[in-house]
Amino acid sequence: MIRVLVWNEFFHEKDKNNASSEIYPNGIHNAIADFLGKEDDITVTTATLDDENCGITDEVLKNTDVIIWWGHCRHEKVPDEVAEKVQTAVLNGMGAIFLHSAHKSKPFMRLMGTSCSLIWRESGDFERVWVAKPSHPIAAGIDTCFELPAEETYGEPFGIPTPDEIVFMGWYSGGEVFRSGVTYTRGNGKVFYFQPGHETFPTYRDPSVQRVILNAVRWAAPTVRIDNAMDCPNPPSRNK
Amino acid sequence: MIRVLVWNEFFHEKDKNNASSEIYPNGIHNAIADFLGKEDDITVTTATLDDENCGITDEVLKNTDVIIWWGHCRHEKVPDEVAEKVQTAVLNGMGAIFLHSAHKSKPFMRLMGTSCSLIWRESGDFERVWVAKPSHPIAAGIDTCFELPAEETYGEPFGIPTPDEIVFMGWYSGGEVFRSGVTYTRGNGKVFYFQPGHETFPTYRDPSVQRVILNAVRWAAPTVRIDNAMDCPNPPSRNK
Amino acid sequence: MIRVLVWNEFFHEKDKNNASSEIYPNGIHNAIADFLGKEDDITVTTATLDDENCGITDEVLKNTDVIIWWGHCRHEKVPDEVAEKVQTAVLNGMGAIFLHSAHKSKPFMRLMGTSCSLIWRESGDFERVWVAKPSHPIAAGIDTCFELPAEETYGEPFGIPTPDEIVFMGWYSGGEVFRSGVTYTRGNGKVFYFQPGHETFPTYRDPSVQRVILNAVRWAAPTVRIDNAMDCPNPPSRNK
Amino acid sequence: MIRVLVWNEFFHEKDKNNASSEIYPNGIHNAIADFLGKEDDITVTTATLDDENCGITDEVLKNTDVIIWWGHCRHEKVPDEVAEKVQTAVLNGMGAIFLHSAHKSKPFMRLMGTSCSLIWRESGDFERVWVAKPSHPIAAGIDTCFELPAEETYGEPFGIPTPDEIVFMGWYSGGEVFRSGVTYTRGNGKVFYFQPGHETFPTYRDPSVQRVILNAVRWAAPTVRIDNAMDCPNPPSRNK
Repeated sequence: MIRVLVWNEFFHEKDKNNASSEIYPNGIHNAIADFLGKEDDITVTTATLDDENCGITDEVLKNTDVIIWWGHCRHEKVPDEVAEKVQTAVLNGMGAIFLHSAHKSKPFMRLMGTSCSLIWRESGDFERVWVAKPSHPIAAGIDTCFELPAEETYGEPFGIPTPDEIVFMGWYSGGEVFRSGVTYTRGNGKVFYFQPGHETFPTYRDPSVQRVILNAVRWAAPTVRIDNAMDCPNPPSRNK
Repeated sequence: MIRVLVWNEFFHEKDKNNASSEIYPNGIHNAIADFLGKEDDITVTTATLDDENCGITDEVLKNTDVIIWWGHCRHEKVPDEVAEKVQTAVLNGMGAIFLHSAHKSKPFMRLMGTSCSLIWRESGDFERVWVAKPSHPIAAGIDTCFELPAEETYGEPFGIPTPDEIVFMGWYSGGEVFRSGVTYTRGNGKVFYFQPGHETFPTYRDPSVQRVILNAVRWAAPTVRIDNAMDCPNPPSRNK
Repeated sequence: MIRVLVWNEFFHEKDKNNASSEIYPNGIHNAIADFLGKEDDITVTTATLDDENCGITDEVLKNTDVIIWWGHCRHEKVPDEVAEKVQTAVLNGMGAIFLHSAHKSKPFMRLMGTSCSLIWRESGDFERVWVAKPSHPIAAGIDTCFELPAEETYGEPFGIPTPDEIVFMGWYSGGEVFRSGVTYTRGNGKVFYFQPGHETFPTYRDPSVQRVILNAVRWAAPTVRIDNAMDCPNPPSRNK
Repeated sequence: MIRVLVWNEFFHEKDKNNASSEIYPNGIHNAIADFLGKEDDITVTTATLDDENCGITDEVLKNTDVIIWWGHCRHEKVPDEVAEKVQTAVLNGMGAIFLHSAHKSKPFMRLMGTSCSLIWRESGDFERVWVAKPSHPIAAGIDTCFELPAEETYGEPFGIPTPDEIVFMGWYSGGEVFRSGVTYTRGNGKVFYFQPGHETFPTYRDPSVQRVILNAVRWAAPTVRIDNAMDCPNPPSRNK
């Protein structure tokens, strides 16, 4: 059983003047939890910025196999201590999926070490997401490409380290391109960044997007889980 | 002084019924040699499929710092022995730049080890080439992106090994995306693949394209040149 | 069920004057097939250089999920056509494990595109193989390192492209170091190179070596299998 | 002219009971500054933990092309703000060379995003440093390997992201192996980690070590320098 924690800053969706309040009345986290929760091999919990300590404690992370993170304009409200806990849990083996504007979230930026900057435009461009690595488990069930009628445009250069793998590349009607799905190993943990998901569009109701996130959960589930990745052992020589 | 050899299959341009015969009456190789030859630090020679042994001998390669390769529908006419010579010269330190349809040329395929396949369409799409890695020497002088009024469309998935660096990514008006400029190290040699350059469009007269090729020549020029990359030495232990 | 084909040039073991004839009287291929064949999820067949077409046909490869390759001094006896078939099968999704001196085998060299050279010495050095990536599935069950009382020494520089992952690194009593276990993705297929296994030592009877090869078989088993990796499709634009 | 800043925590060398006080009476930073300062194309300044703000201000970093960092047991004394300034300067284009125990320094750990852990032993093992990538500019002038009579032993697994390039690999008489010289690009900046240099051994007086550090300075010098790597521009569509 894969234990998933969906974390969301849960801000826009509570604002009646924001389109997201109608699209995701229970928040993006619950929209994601809903479709993941239907799978037999997955159990889902959620946490938000409003929870004490963001709902993230050592105990919570110890019982999380894969964390999914959505944040946008409240990144700075997440305490450094919480971001560090998430980073360390990944290095110990927890999987992590960062969605859309989480490219500038504290845990993702800490894991990348770079600016994670990009160019962007909120114009509701049409996006076509191409499969760049068809044999990757995260692309299973996606044939060639999928299309989103409206998305926030993200464009290169994307300030990330060279990814281990580029699974998806996005084409926008406004003329930009983007590495829309990229993977990393960080310590014992697997990391997937996935670009679709602006809050004012029903992206997380799209079957292809849901399939990719589901695939990514299964891909990121740990094979090894330790609790001391940060340690530097001091063993004697093994030579005789 | 960087000694450049521009190799071209030189087939389409000799066909009066092909648009390339008007655009490149002296062949693509001479169009490229012309702008490179204006640089003080570069000397250029050319060779084509019509030359004996494709104009490629051990002596020629020994005196070449960077080879530029253009081929399209005569890849199979290049003898395996010639392709192997080019591959070995790269492993020994020679730089190599593969242009456009040279993605299926024998030397490039040998250096990559993969299918080098892609999807394509000859519809004269508009292309915008984005800089994905602004600090890369090959992108010097290119600000954000450059545009080509008409190009052959190349699309993902591109069957290459994970590149060391993605310098450019292409956006096509027909809806495709492509890793348009990618680098590799192979042995002691540097390799750059650059997508623009269909024979029926004046792509190699575009100032940005010329700048990129010039940058790539300087980037690919060898720092180390050996003649025995294929050998496996059998030294004694250095321990006392 | 994972269908494994163990290929061996099967030369040294038939020579009564070679130590391998006593260590592997039925050949290295059968020593490997024996321990793999005990697993419930694996079926094993073998083939050797003596078989017609090296025992490798399109039909055989179509029914192989993972090929294991051992060769040493008869690499050149493998026809280019056979090597190409193996390469293409990997690009289509078949897994491939290359053992020890197979670093200079035709299929491995074709998949890498480089010299695959190294330094070597047959002095029966002690080798300690360190786990460099403990969370990798291929290292499962190996704690920190394992030791081989005697092996052929392989040393850097190893003329391979930058690996996707370095799983093992070898230390030799004679003073050399080597990237002893490295992974690649090539097209739809996974490739693992593993250094231990000189024919005159009982390396393939070592429990850790057996565990690594078993892990690698499960890791390399295809997730996607196609039959047209070499094709370049020519689709119409998807834009409306 | 390449402007180098050598930073050192400068702690051990001031302790008369520590061997380093005799080996580096003026501190490791000055030992490094001395040999770099002899080069015509380099100007060197130094800074230490004792300086106000560690001697690191925006103005200082703006006028630094390459920073060299040595730290060991006072990593935590470096304020987060200083570490962040160094990280940001690298993303903007400054080169950075991290020496020996700086693998656990704040700026390096921030740039890597991982544990940067390793195994270690202070037993004065003999070390042989092998060149794994002979054509790399950082290895220029180093033939095959160099030897250090006594070093602190560092061993795998080294908790770093997959390096862009492995230039050196270390062999220790006590039986360990280590990726001793590795490169990264982070944003617009180049990063080199180099393992030799325990404070109680005269490692920075070794000609090969000095040559590597000098090579690394020239390699890491910026080609592009910006001041806004952290920004996310919001441009209009370029389509007409």
